Amino acid sequence: MPSWNIPETQKSIGVFDSGIGGLTVVHALMQHLPQENITYFGDTARVPYGSKSEEVVREYAFEDTRFLLQQGVKIIVVACNTVSAVAIDDLKAHFDIPIIGMIEPGAAAACKASKNGRIGVIGTLATIGSESYPRKLKECKSSFEIFSTPCPLFVPLAEEGWRTHPASDLIAEEYLADLRKEQIDTLILGCTHYPILRDVIQKHVGPQVALIDSGEAAAIQVEQMLREKNLLNTSTAQPNYSFFVSDVPQKFKQLGELFLQKADLRVTKVHLQ
Amino acid sequence: MPSWNIPETQKSIGVFDSGIGGLTVVHALMQHLPQENITYFGDTARVPYGSKSEEVVREYAFEDTRFLLQQGVKIIVVACNTVSAVAIDDLKAHFDIPIIGMIEPGAAAACKASKNGRIGVIGTLATIGSESYPRKLKECKSSFEIFSTPCPLFVPLAEEGWRTHPASDLIAEEYLADLRKEQIDTLILGCTHYPILRDVIQKHVGPQVALIDSGEAAAIQVEQMLREKNLLNTSTAQPNYSFFVSDVPQKFKQLGELFLQKADLRVTKVHLQ
Repeated sequence: MPSWNIPETQKSIGVFDSGIGGLTVVHALMQHLPQENITYFGDTARVPYGSKSEEVVREYAFEDTRFLLQQGVKIIVVACNTVSAVAIDDLKAHFDIPIIGMIEPGAAAACKASKNGRIGVIGTLATIGSESYPRKLKECKSSFEIFSTPCPLFVPLAEEGWRTHPASDLIAEEYLADLRKEQIDTLILGCTHYPILRDVIQKHVGPQVALIDSGEAAAIQVEQMLREKNLLNTSTAQPNYSFFVSDVPQKFKQLGELFLQKADLRVTKVHLQ
Repeated sequence: MPSWNIPETQKSIGVFDSGIGGLTVVHALMQHLPQENITYFGDTARVPYGSKSEEVVREYAFEDTRFLLQQGVKIIVVACNTVSAVAIDDLKAHFDIPIIGMIEPGAAAACKASKNGRIGVIGTLATIGSESYPRKLKECKSSFEIFSTPCPLFVPLAEEGWRTHPASDLIAEEYLADLRKEQIDTLILGCTHYPILRDVIQKHVGPQVALIDSGEAAAIQVEQMLREKNLLNTSTAQPNYSFFVSDVPQKFKQLGELFLQKADLRVTKVHLQ
C-alpha cells in the first residue's frame, strides 16, 4: 500500500544526551547546519550517566536511541561523552542508521591540534574509566602521550552556572594542576557540560593549551557525513526544533537557556515504556 | 493453607534512598537499634532525586516502596529527604505499613532544640522547593521564623569526600552566609548526604548553632514506633544487613564506606521491572 513519506533530506538530525548538557552540541549543530531540523531527547529523569556503571549506561543508550528512531530521524548524534565512551560500538552494530558520537570527532580534532604530542583528557568517571579517548588518540598516532583525569564536580558547577565563582577556580586548580605540570598543549573537553566552564578551565591549564570541544568537532563531522550521503537539507524553510525530555525539573528553563544560549525553550515530556 | 511465617518482630526494617546518602540513616539505625535486621534499597541507577520534578520523584518512591514490601519488611524508613518532602503523605495513604520519613522527625528535633525560634533549613532544590520543613515547623510553633536555602553542590562535594577542601569552605560560605546573618540558633541538615560535611557546615554557620541530623532523629522515632507496636526484635542473634541497589557504579565501594563508616559492604544489584 503506498503511503506519504517525508523526503529523507528533510528528516531531523536526532540528538540525545543523559540530560541537557547535550544542548551545547545542539548549539554547535545550529551554528554549522542552520537549515537542518533537529530532534533532541534528554533523559532528565535519570541524569547523570557519568557516575553510573557501563551496563546501566548501555541499557539507557539503547532506550534513548529507540525513541529517536520512532521520531523518524535521518542520523543520530550521541551528544553524551559517557554513552559515546561505553556504548557507541554496540549502538552502531545494532541500529541501521548513521550514528556519530563524541569520542572519535574529539580525538581527531585533538590529533590535528597537538604539536608536542602531549594531550590531556577530562571527563566524567565513566568516560575516563573507559579509556576511549586514549585508545582513539593512539590509533591516530601511537607516540602520543595522554594524561586523563575525571572532574566529577564540573557537571554540578556548570549546572549551578558558577562560571567565575572562586570555588570553581579552586576546584579547577585541584583537578587540572597535574595536567598543567605535564605540559600538555591540547586538552579535550570530554563532557558536554564542560564548554560552559571553558574560561576557568583555560585559566588553569594555561593560555597556550588548545581546548577541544568534542561537540563542535562532532557538528563538523555531521555536516561531512550528511554531505557524503546526500542527506543535507536543501529546504530554505525555517528549521524545526523539537525538544523531548523524560522529566522537567525545576531548573529546566534556566539551564536550557544557559546551555543553548537561547530563550523560550519549549519541550515535551515523554515517558519511556 | 497454613505456611511458615517469620515472626513479625524478626522482620527487617526496610530503608530506601535515591542512592547511598541514606546509608548515613542506616548507620544511625545500627547505633540505636543494634539488634534489628535492616534491608536497604538504593536507587543508584536513577540517583539523584533532589534535582528532579515532584511527579518523577513520587513515581520512583512508589517503585522503591513496593520493592521493600516484597522483601517482607515490618516498617519502612524513607531515608531520603526529597522523597519525604514530596511523597510521604501519598506513600502513607497508599501502603498499609508503618512509614517514617525524614521531615517530621527532623522538624520535631529542631523544634525542641531552638531557643530563639530562628531555624535554618538546608536541602536539595526539590526539598526546599516543597516547603515541607517550614510547614512542619510552623505546626509545632507558628511563631517560628524559618530561613531555607538549597545547597545543590553539597551532594557532589560529599560524594567526592571533600570534607576539608578549601573549595568546600568557599561553597559553604556562599550557601550559608545569609543563614548566619539571620542569627539562626538551629539548622536542619535536610539531606542525608549533609552529615558527611557536618564540620564545614558548623564552621560557616557558627559554633553556637545546633545542627539537626534528620536521620539521627528518625532513628529515635523508629525505635519509639517499634516499641509502641511491640515490633522490637528481641532476638540476640547477630543482625542481618541486606543491601540492594539498582546499579553498582564505579565509586560504590568507596562511597559505601564513607557513608556507612563500615568496610566490606556486600550488595545485590536488582532490576526494577
